Amino acid sequence: MASPKTIALDAMGGDHGPEVVIPGAALSLERHPALSFIFFGDERRINAALDQHSALKAKSRVVHTSNVVAMHDKPSQALRRGKGSSMWLALEAVKLGEAHAAVSAGNTGALMAMAKLILRPIAGIERPALAALWPTVRSECIVLDVGANVGATARKLSELALMGAAMARAIFHIEKPTVGLLNVGVEDVKGVEEVRVAHAWLKAAADLPFDYKGFVEGDQIGHGAADVVVVEGFAGNIALKTAEGTARQIGVYLKGAMASSLLTKFGALLARGGFRVLKAKMDPRRLNGGTFLGLKGIAVKSHGGTDAFGFASAVDLAY
Amino acid sequence: MASPKTIALDAMGGDHGPEVVIPGAALSLERHPALSFIFFGDERRINAALDQHSALKAKSRVVHTSNVVAMHDKPSQALRRGKGSSMWLALEAVKLGEAHAAVSAGNTGALMAMAKLILRPIAGIERPALAALWPTVRSECIVLDVGANVGATARKLSELALMGAAMARAIFHIEKPTVGLLNVGVEDVKGVEEVRVAHAWLKAAADLPFDYKGFVEGDQIGHGAADVVVVEGFAGNIALKTAEGTARQIGVYLKGAMASSLLTKFGALLARGGFRVLKAKMDPRRLNGGTFLGLKGIAVKSHGGTDAFGFASAVDLAY
Repeated sequence: MASPKTIALDAMGGDHGPEVVIPGAALSLERHPALSFIFFGDERRINAALDQHSALKAKSRVVHTSNVVAMHDKPSQALRRGKGSSMWLALEAVKLGEAHAAVSAGNTGALMAMAKLILRPIAGIERPALAALWPTVRSECIVLDVGANVGATARKLSELALMGAAMARAIFHIEKPTVGLLNVGVEDVKGVEEVRVAHAWLKAAADLPFDYKGFVEGDQIGHGAADVVVVEGFAGNIALKTAEGTARQIGVYLKGAMASSLLTKFGALLARGGFRVLKAKMDPRRLNGGTFLGLKGIAVKSHGGTDAFGFASAVDLAY
Repeated sequence: MASPKTIALDAMGGDHGPEVVIPGAALSLERHPALSFIFFGDERRINAALDQHSALKAKSRVVHTSNVVAMHDKPSQALRRGKGSSMWLALEAVKLGEAHAAVSAGNTGALMAMAKLILRPIAGIERPALAALWPTVRSECIVLDVGANVGATARKLSELALMGAAMARAIFHIEKPTVGLLNVGVEDVKGVEEVRVAHAWLKAAADLPFDYKGFVEGDQIGHGAADVVVVEGFAGNIALKTAEGTARQIGVYLKGAMASSLLTKFGALLARGGFRVLKAKMDPRRLNGGTFLGLKGIAVKSHGGTDAFGFASAVDLAY
């Protein structure tokens, strides 16, 4: 049997709060019975939601707080006013050893600032990064940074490569993961200064704990060009959301194409097993959850707008 | 009947040269009989290819040059050594009024530098931008910059908004196009400094020749959130290529899903008309071609790796 793990959940984070967080936790518990939970937030709303999920209720503890970080708070405001908030307490539970990981669907900037303050970066890491799992035609890869920091020096990009490789070793069980640097072309002369300098460093470096593959272009991420793709957070976040949007857009096209005649409708009906497989593969909720890397503790960020299914993926990732 | 237009083609640009450029031009001529062409490059290879396309041959003129800009040349090298090259001569034909537009599948940086030198920016524009047509669930939108310049000041972003809106008026025939600024979130506090400053300016500006919609996230581009989406060239190029890669990736998933059982294979066979529609919609070659904006002349960049079908789309766009 898997060893028991406790997850601290910010029940108030995201657009929907406990009404998504609790059904999400219940789904993840079905998949991972070794889990138990601590919920932080408005105890009345949390308990009302828990009453619908008796198996989850039996493995949960609720800690009340009325302080909540708002989605539009600046990180500095969140740090000033957020002490004792549901987000804060969830992270503190990890620091105090009461939980193995924290999950929040709240404000990314606030979560990042608080995680840094409470969990502290590991030695040598200046700022934590946010890493996403990205589906590829082969399996999955890790893309980072997807929005924790905008802009990155060459040093920071090299740091991201190291952190991403460490995550790849942990979750993909690959001894020497491949790492690529996202750029606008594959020639050495392309791209911004920082990316070119990081490329030169990584190419020249000996004894790296990963296999540096050079530049990767945007269309090569999903092709599976590298186990880890490194990019600064502004372009990384835009790439991630653009891929999600494109998947949704093609879903709309597909529906339209299959509804275009009686014959296509009938064919689609017969092939519905295949469409179910496809839908599951294309569902961005399946890989919801960004992991903060470079901290002395595990913190996972879920999309703010996700539903219970998506939140469950973020809890799975933390597990 | 449409008025005749002449397109100057860099026959040597791209990964394949005349063997793609000439069949591409032939395809575009079928769709737009008012076109005629001037081909610049190795006359032996061009004439050999033209011999297979007699209708095209009748509407073409060939100008020989043995000077070619290589795909890995830096822009500065291309300017130094590229005088008289096929790319140079195609752009010069536009400047001299011999052609209405130039198309090249060559090195983007070199094309941008040469286009700027030969065609000159229009008054008030510091550097030209590269704009792409992006399919949306509603129709199409314009995304710029997709790689002419990496990095952009707030002033440059505002300039991109103006240029993109002008292009939208010209090709979509919309009096007051909507414009959005690509960012990592929709709250005013999100993103890099330059993007926030440009946002504040555009929000406050009166009498803009477009309707400013505020921040747009990556997943909203294909949703059709705005007629024009503005972003600096590094993130814009990555977004464009990521969307193309995702479309190709889903194509692979779809094929796999439809081949998963006899029933799905049979269903897919019946629905093949629908799949044809879908395939056409998802085909990135359909909207191949980036337009340089802000110059006193039209220059279109085709993907270097495209085939004749894709190159024809770039010629269509120029037309």
